[in-house]
Amino acid sequence: MNQFVYNISTKVYFGENQLGHLGEELKKFGTRVLMTYGGGSIKKSGLYDKVVAEIKKAGLELFELSGIEPNPRVSSVNAGAEICKKEKIDVLLAVGGGSVIDCTKFIGAATFHDGDAWDILEGKVDVKKCLPIVDILTLAATGSEMDNGGVISNPKTKDKIGMGFDVMQPKVSFLDPTLTYSVSSYQTACGSADMLSHIFEVYFNMEKDLYMLDTVMEGLIKTIIKYAPVAMKNPEDYEARANLMWASSWAINGFIDGGKCQAWSCHPMEHELSAIYDITHGLGLAILTPRWMEYCLDDTTVSRYYQFGCNVFGLDPSMEPMQVAKKSIKLTAEFLYQTLGLKSTFSEIGIDETNFEVMAEKAVRIGGLKDAFKPLTKEDVVNIFKMCK
Amino acid sequence: MNQFVYNISTKVYFGENQLGHLGEELKKFGTRVLMTYGGGSIKKSGLYDKVVAEIKKAGLELFELSGIEPNPRVSSVNAGAEICKKEKIDVLLAVGGGSVIDCTKFIGAATFHDGDAWDILEGKVDVKKCLPIVDILTLAATGSEMDNGGVISNPKTKDKIGMGFDVMQPKVSFLDPTLTYSVSSYQTACGSADMLSHIFEVYFNMEKDLYMLDTVMEGLIKTIIKYAPVAMKNPEDYEARANLMWASSWAINGFIDGGKCQAWSCHPMEHELSAIYDITHGLGLAILTPRWMEYCLDDTTVSRYYQFGCNVFGLDPSMEPMQVAKKSIKLTAEFLYQTLGLKSTFSEIGIDETNFEVMAEKAVRIGGLKDAFKPLTKEDVVNIFKMCK
Repeated sequence: MNQFVYNISTKVYFGENQLGHLGEELKKFGTRVLMTYGGGSIKKSGLYDKVVAEIKKAGLELFELSGIEPNPRVSSVNAGAEICKKEKIDVLLAVGGGSVIDCTKFIGAATFHDGDAWDILEGKVDVKKCLPIVDILTLAATGSEMDNGGVISNPKTKDKIGMGFDVMQPKVSFLDPTLTYSVSSYQTACGSADMLSHIFEVYFNMEKDLYMLDTVMEGLIKTIIKYAPVAMKNPEDYEARANLMWASSWAINGFIDGGKCQAWSCHPMEHELSAIYDITHGLGLAILTPRWMEYCLDDTTVSRYYQFGCNVFGLDPSMEPMQVAKKSIKLTAEFLYQTLGLKSTFSEIGIDETNFEVMAEKAVRIGGLKDAFKPLTKEDVVNIFKMCK
Repeated sequence: MNQFVYNISTKVYFGENQLGHLGEELKKFGTRVLMTYGGGSIKKSGLYDKVVAEIKKAGLELFELSGIEPNPRVSSVNAGAEICKKEKIDVLLAVGGGSVIDCTKFIGAATFHDGDAWDILEGKVDVKKCLPIVDILTLAATGSEMDNGGVISNPKTKDKIGMGFDVMQPKVSFLDPTLTYSVSSYQTACGSADMLSHIFEVYFNMEKDLYMLDTVMEGLIKTIIKYAPVAMKNPEDYEARANLMWASSWAINGFIDGGKCQAWSCHPMEHELSAIYDITHGLGLAILTPRWMEYCLDDTTVSRYYQFGCNVFGLDPSMEPMQVAKKSIKLTAEFLYQTLGLKSTFSEIGIDETNFEVMAEKAVRIGGLKDAFKPLTKEDVVNIFKMCK
């Protein structure tokens, strides 16, 4: 009961104007830096030039890998590892959102593996070494900046697998809320849905837990509900961006789970959706979450929803617990679909029943859904998918 | 605004039956271990034997320093550093509460200093090196297990000074709530008052802050208010001890302040009390806190008390802010003096006006109280002391 190891060693520079520390931090690990990034938005925003200037100023040698995909592919991991081996890279610098950081973590690990990086995702390799990772975050969502995991897609097999190893924990992360000013309203909404889901995966749990961590989770949820709409309306609201950014890290860096070991629910289901349909992860989660909540609500689980409804939405504790629970699901759906304006059905985003069975089977098998909040079978997952139609 | 560096690298083993990891963790730093502890309660409880057995099992060489005082003295620091130099110690193992860990941190630093350890406390030495520190916590209070600071007393000068250096951050902490089962009701109360004060020192602040961290602080305060009386009544309530223990670490490990840089208020005042009268730190804080709250309440600061009263004590937000503020101070005092049963006046613990002036002068000078929540002069501090008579 509540036995766990807490080990979050990432050093975080939070706030504006901290990039002056980039050179000194990179230098601690060597002189040859591979900078990884995505489709080039960092060039448009001017961040690329600033980063390169800091690297040059520190006298470091710069290599680059661009074009990392929004759902990062194993081909990018292999390409990055190839550069690291050939150029004897000392340290990786990921500049971007969760996709870039996730991909970079596996590049760091694959550098010490002879063969296809996919072997790592398939669990064939026990990752014991990884190049040190420094990152500059440009999107608040996945929390990859402060955890040891990542998710990689394989378009050939249509697999999307998440894994984590201690050695992949970033050494240093730069979290500057102003770098997220340019994140679109839609991506802000998707990122917020992702963060919420990270917390829900832990909060909705029937294992023995620490009250203290419940209060932290409720605070994080309230923070997201309070500030996501503010950031969508006024993208340059520092307070909103700062709260969302720091909340994104703490939603998934390991602090809030405090020894709980249940399998996650919505994430494994969503990974199957985006593996096949290449949708935005947070959008898939937003569609699934209220349906999953509804499907799992019963006399055994109702106490958790009751606590959620009272402490997060301020519902009247004297109401019947089942009433509070149902109302809390309704309010969650309203937040996702009305306040954040996200689409609420599969049909709106081009997903039909074709792959329900195969996706459900993989979600249960790969995600271990039999050990989730409410244990789910393949049939359960198909039912939840049908509720999303 | 909200620019800060987050860097909490301590690895924590939380929960029962984790001591099996002690040997492997110590070994990472070498083979010669200096174990430090206090007055011998760890021998009575059987913990001493268990720790020694783990050290022997790991094949490590054990040295010992016992008798570290409740308000640890610089003489103990010097004695420990002497052993470290002479015996070429590789790693320090502190077994005890905050006093033992605090003292051990400065032993680790003083090992690399030629001369009196008091030089470090006087700010004459920039501490760049420290022996690695592992600890086993036996009292939830000071948070020393997860921060880089400590407080040392000098009976000759009647000084008590707190300082912190990054290199003194413990590498590994073992937090087993069952080790606090034997903590007396009185010490549980004092420890809880200390934790509350750590949070109040940050929470009562007029600097720009992150809402997210406010929710965390309010959750920590509620955790302590909920579980301190439970642990006092039933010392072997695991849930209560676990919540208090983890809250004690997070109250002061640096997470909650998020870039605020105001000076603390009650701690500098209390350090002067316990430097002269050798009282329990938490008790001194408990007497000071409600008077300080009352003294600092005005039209500028009332908003903070209002938030506190509504979010922590659930007071009606439609009440006048000043009413909520006053009620929140009353409830805080009731919690400390009635629920925790702590003494509420100086006269009850043998402190009279004799040293008010000299203590106030030092608190303002050493503690930098002009930069506190409400800036305090020597006269202000004397006034607060008088309110405690």
